[in-house]
Amino acid sequence: MEIVLTNDDGIWAIGLRTLYKSLINAGHQVHVIAPLTEQSAVGHAVTLSNPIRIKYVKNSNIQGIGVSGTPVDCVKLALTKILKNPPDLLVSGINNGANVGVDILYSGTVAAATEAALAGVSALAVSIDNFSPTDLNDQAEFVCRLIKKIDWKKFKNRVLNLNFPNLPLNKVKGIKVCPQTQAIYKDWYEERVDPRGRPYFWLCGYIPEENLSPKSDRAYLSKGYITLTPLNFDFTDKKLLTQLQIEIDNNFEVNNKEVK
Amino acid sequence: MEIVLTNDDGIWAIGLRTLYKSLINAGHQVHVIAPLTEQSAVGHAVTLSNPIRIKYVKNSNIQGIGVSGTPVDCVKLALTKILKNPPDLLVSGINNGANVGVDILYSGTVAAATEAALAGVSALAVSIDNFSPTDLNDQAEFVCRLIKKIDWKKFKNRVLNLNFPNLPLNKVKGIKVCPQTQAIYKDWYEERVDPRGRPYFWLCGYIPEENLSPKSDRAYLSKGYITLTPLNFDFTDKKLLTQLQIEIDNNFEVNNKEVK
Repeated sequence: MEIVLTNDDGIWAIGLRTLYKSLINAGHQVHVIAPLTEQSAVGHAVTLSNPIRIKYVKNSNIQGIGVSGTPVDCVKLALTKILKNPPDLLVSGINNGANVGVDILYSGTVAAATEAALAGVSALAVSIDNFSPTDLNDQAEFVCRLIKKIDWKKFKNRVLNLNFPNLPLNKVKGIKVCPQTQAIYKDWYEERVDPRGRPYFWLCGYIPEENLSPKSDRAYLSKGYITLTPLNFDFTDKKLLTQLQIEIDNNFEVNNKEVK
Repeated sequence: MEIVLTNDDGIWAIGLRTLYKSLINAGHQVHVIAPLTEQSAVGHAVTLSNPIRIKYVKNSNIQGIGVSGTPVDCVKLALTKILKNPPDLLVSGINNGANVGVDILYSGTVAAATEAALAGVSALAVSIDNFSPTDLNDQAEFVCRLIKKIDWKKFKNRVLNLNFPNLPLNKVKGIKVCPQTQAIYKDWYEERVDPRGRPYFWLCGYIPEENLSPKSDRAYLSKGYITLTPLNFDFTDKKLLTQLQIEIDNNFEVNNKEVK
């Protein structure tokens, strides 16, 4: 297959280069187009107010194009400027850190896959529940087998969101196709003081385990399963559309300033 | 009501200060917590790798807290650090530029509202289909009337996404409760050369009108209607879950490297 490979940890990240090697070994044609610098938690950010630069990168580990922007910028550039024809698949990852539940909103890894899916390109986001992995060879090989296994035509305009638990692959209990958790982070800010005496804040947070539905991605992942979730991006709440229509129809007039 | 007001155009933007004045005049208690600098198209980005600074801002137009981060950072700070109790409502806007269809993914304005909704706070995102509005007094007053009209308890964990057309309010045709458009941007990059002879790229794009469903937000907005859409943030494609389960169940084993 012809595959665009990107990520949000940047073009030098272990997850990207390991997956690159495995995809090449599996016989795919791989175009690496990835951020030059780490872009974690940038969500679906896109660079509008600044120009974008690209840099050709080639060494023994990786060959591709580094982009001075976000993961979504990389995908837009790949699909509109760099590739002549749409690729068969876009793969984003392997990300350092899981992307489950609301992480999907914050994640640059998933956003890259989303951008491809919206453009009609099949897309796979891959993450591991470990912020500092040192060997992802088995996971990368697993990804290659999964890519071969899936009938991608059935998942048009969707993202398949794959997450590995923080375990060697031979300790993994299995793979679960499951929904994202609806549980959210418990956030707080640590207030600290810098060397010049000025205060600053740093975000902390975790998803409380007691809030997790046991059949959701976060729960399975913590129990040692690989999780796989199909994602779509229609935010419209169709049930509430009707409810809201009722609220608005009852005598709400655009220019009637009397109705205060 | 006790309202948190934020945006993505920054604390000095016309949309924020006009809405601030109207909300105060309407008798609300308003906490402004907004980015210190423009944060357009940052999506759901959150600042993890850097500290966050805050700055108290007070002049004749606005009083509040400026944050050295993204709209989502502002909401997290407001809800976890600055306010003692959850507010009744979070309002994000009025944004320079519409947020309809896939804009919802790219938009910092909507992301701020989403972050509040996920935390259980009712949320309204407000945008106008104009990148350089000069007078938003009528729109701000409309927002105040809408806030009073809606029974917010019915829209828990949802964002109401409000968009004004690029017209004076007395020329607006009406208000449409409608789904987001599924049409996507036709993107391209302009390649230019900087004064030092190096190439750079700048994103351009528009949503082709022929792709718009006539009953979607973008279509109504272009025809002169105000649009209002309830948004939810469960990305799981429940129909495809079953389909994917079938794909995966048929003899796919995690550690079976033979199944290449």
